[in-house]
Amino acid sequence: MDAHDLQIRRVGIDTWRENVAYLHRDCAVVRAAGFQALAKVQVKANGQTISAVLNVVDDARIVSACELGLSEDAFARLDVAEGHPARIAPAEPPESLPALYRKVAGERLEREDLHAIIRDVAAARYSKIELAAFVVATNGYDLDRDEVLHLTSAMIAAGRRLDWQHAVRGGPVVDKHCIGGIPGNRTSMLVVPIVTAHGMLCPKTSSRAITSPAGTADTMEVLADVELPFERLQQIVRDTNGCLAWGGTADLSPADDILISVERPLAIDSPGQMVASILSKKIAAGSTHLVLDIPVGPTAKVRSMPAAQRLRKLFEYVADRLHLQLDVMITDGSQPIGRGIGPVLEARDVMQVLHNDPDAPSDLRDKALRLAGRVIEFDPDVRGGDGWRIARDILESGRALAQMQALIDAQGRRAVPPTLGELTYDVLADAPGRVVAIDNLHLARIARLAGAPQVSGAGVDLRVKLGEAVQPGQPLYRIHACFPADLAFACAAAGRASGYGLRSE
Amino acid sequence: MDAHDLQIRRVGIDTWRENVAYLHRDCAVVRAAGFQALAKVQVKANGQTISAVLNVVDDARIVSACELGLSEDAFARLDVAEGHPARIAPAEPPESLPALYRKVAGERLEREDLHAIIRDVAAARYSKIELAAFVVATNGYDLDRDEVLHLTSAMIAAGRRLDWQHAVRGGPVVDKHCIGGIPGNRTSMLVVPIVTAHGMLCPKTSSRAITSPAGTADTMEVLADVELPFERLQQIVRDTNGCLAWGGTADLSPADDILISVERPLAIDSPGQMVASILSKKIAAGSTHLVLDIPVGPTAKVRSMPAAQRLRKLFEYVADRLHLQLDVMITDGSQPIGRGIGPVLEARDVMQVLHNDPDAPSDLRDKALRLAGRVIEFDPDVRGGDGWRIARDILESGRALAQMQALIDAQGRRAVPPTLGELTYDVLADAPGRVVAIDNLHLARIARLAGAPQVSGAGVDLRVKLGEAVQPGQPLYRIHACFPADLAFACAAAGRASGYGLRSE
Repeated sequence: MDAHDLQIRRVGIDTWRENVAYLHRDCAVVRAAGFQALAKVQVKANGQTISAVLNVVDDARIVSACELGLSEDAFARLDVAEGHPARIAPAEPPESLPALYRKVAGERLEREDLHAIIRDVAAARYSKIELAAFVVATNGYDLDRDEVLHLTSAMIAAGRRLDWQHAVRGGPVVDKHCIGGIPGNRTSMLVVPIVTAHGMLCPKTSSRAITSPAGTADTMEVLADVELPFERLQQIVRDTNGCLAWGGTADLSPADDILISVERPLAIDSPGQMVASILSKKIAAGSTHLVLDIPVGPTAKVRSMPAAQRLRKLFEYVADRLHLQLDVMITDGSQPIGRGIGPVLEARDVMQVLHNDPDAPSDLRDKALRLAGRVIEFDPDVRGGDGWRIARDILESGRALAQMQALIDAQGRRAVPPTLGELTYDVLADAPGRVVAIDNLHLARIARLAGAPQVSGAGVDLRVKLGEAVQPGQPLYRIHACFPADLAFACAAAGRASGYGLRSE
Repeated sequence: MDAHDLQIRRVGIDTWRENVAYLHRDCAVVRAAGFQALAKVQVKANGQTISAVLNVVDDARIVSACELGLSEDAFARLDVAEGHPARIAPAEPPESLPALYRKVAGERLEREDLHAIIRDVAAARYSKIELAAFVVATNGYDLDRDEVLHLTSAMIAAGRRLDWQHAVRGGPVVDKHCIGGIPGNRTSMLVVPIVTAHGMLCPKTSSRAITSPAGTADTMEVLADVELPFERLQQIVRDTNGCLAWGGTADLSPADDILISVERPLAIDSPGQMVASILSKKIAAGSTHLVLDIPVGPTAKVRSMPAAQRLRKLFEYVADRLHLQLDVMITDGSQPIGRGIGPVLEARDVMQVLHNDPDAPSDLRDKALRLAGRVIEFDPDVRGGDGWRIARDILESGRALAQMQALIDAQGRRAVPPTLGELTYDVLADAPGRVVAIDNLHLARIARLAGAPQVSGAGVDLRVKLGEAVQPGQPLYRIHACFPADLAFACAAAGRASGYGLRSE
């Protein structure tokens, strides 16, 4: 350790994806190099290098003049012990910047360009400005299909890749995914128990809700732990053929997580980024066969059949070239699936279906059986067209329920499951008529205002669906909340527009 | 102080202009509102509100669960004592975000949308991500001409606007501007003395170099003060008819300054943003008549005559509707203008022309006279076609020089002007031939590596120009630097490529 070395110190501040290095104002390096707060720097220790933003500290209790403090994420990323010697240098601009400039100028990028960009993104070498420029310049259909292919393979290359081939010995590793946008659409929590009960390997990792009122991970968390250390997750899959876990701990496609953090505040959901995001995560997770659900409807992400077909072909083009067997199902996205919107309500719907409850929402049951049937037909021993019947038998016999209980126990059953919010408000029909439209976006918004997904007992419980007749004063749906302010916000939004379209008869 | 209040604590971390709020992970507010690290929040205390970015803290020595920590700058900005009660709330999204999303999705924006966006930009309500999204989504010709018009008028409306009508009594307030990209092109420092000597009002404010080796403000600063308080600048214009000052203190088009801070790191220079930036600043500065120089050449900003004509028409469309008299000159941008590149060298060239030195660079003299002649023809008393002759007479009679000395004295003459860098290196022709190409971009890069514009004596002094014949060993240009490391960087770049194209004869 020589005069230029600083000692690494972990600073208990969570700056999420933005690595921060804390140096004391009296630190010789700050004074000699004239570093200013917010400068981009490189931290080097033990042969590792990370990029960080500099914060200058005046309080020696946080870091002293001979220490180099790192925020939680930066400390984890550098992966050396406290007290380890480290050096700091001004950051070099990311190697891929010229390629980014060319994309911003509207040019087509080559494979090497996109791999260089994604390497720099994954290594946190891009500033927020550069990240935003990339997602905007690749929005819409601004990426051609080969660029989407290269973006996908670059995202896979930049993260961890799982391999289940020791477990399946050449057999399929299956998965099922929906592009999102339809409230209540919790089919994964039915498909996984059914296809794993059939004996297929389905290590399903899901996201939490980003802009929706519940993701699969949020809903499964009502029943069981979903934040599982990677080694435990592997053991659960070995024991039960599957899992229903949160994907955040597996470090699959880290570049995608970073890009999503910029796409979200810009309300961007472009076809190229969607294909690269979904397929890179599935392939990195070790899946060999995927059933993909693209819902179409006036308030779904995809609004017309031609748009759905165009998106389908883009998914197929990329999947084929990356040797992922892909079966796309274009489904009805004209209204929410099931009745509940919000973690507790959606978990209730799922368990009703698994229990073969006569009151279970039939649309959720039917859709899950169709998807599970298509997954089961990836089994080389299953005859084409037999998948649906096999899936139905597994569900009706109670084997799907038993498998779900096994998954819940393996992941860690919630001792005291959260309960439904007790503050309620019924939104009523104001005239007689038949339901001709339900706005997915507006009902999702109301459920979020009621508190979902952070408040898992909050949400919206639909009482009537498309095609049903209602009388004035009959409830369209019930809002559930746990806090009065949340209920008031949700009721105000429902008061402005119910989200239901009725036609008088 | 009630249950929702937190206690302000000063956290000794300097995050410069980015306000940071530190909350402990166990703080009730973090848990209840589901705040995540990097969320934008509003901190309210004592009737004051500031915006901040949230960092989540795991170390109670930095902040405890009932405290709200503030970075140095945020603490100073909020201006309340430690221990004072404060509240935190999610930041309200800028009102114009839906319009930004529509532009990112490729839609055309209306006048009100662009005015709302620019109001939010000028008020610093946009994040870096949102700023980057706006400049990328409006890149190239992604704005149609009406959108450029609205963007320009919005930028004018968001800043201070000067009015010189009391001084000219309905006469023209003239200006001259170049879109940039040509090293050594310091015609403003000749045009302003000539046209103000003619009696016209020309309150010229210029920028410093952004990506070039010298701006007009950097070069004028070799001779005189350019950072003038606004009241002094007005007095100088009243006394001398003009000025050659830095425009940064006048708060003209502040939204433009913010957008440029994001365009620069993305190497974006789009037609729509260029037109809005230039015309908004000129109109805000009170100009009524503008001569605009668009250089065209293989290494200029505009590479072809059709591209120049398209850009010209866009400038004319917007200027006409905003009642600015505009005269566009498309000029030769195939090589640097004059000989010097860098503040001291460019000031030398300008003073040679003003002194009618026989060695003065003739291309700089000729171009300045053409531009000044066009400006002079804005004078209603000047006959069409007489401007050039009048300008030449003013220059040759020494009246332009006398006027420049008056401007320098009015702004404040530099007592000890900076001198030319004494470390030099001559780049030599390696074969006989005639100069057929000079790369503007590469020579600008070499001059910047030599230290320009921060080191005003650094730069490049051209010894031969297009069309001249050279012998092997004859100098093409001399690099000047003040520091050995700068000279080494510049020489290394010149060693990789001289920037000169020679054709053997």
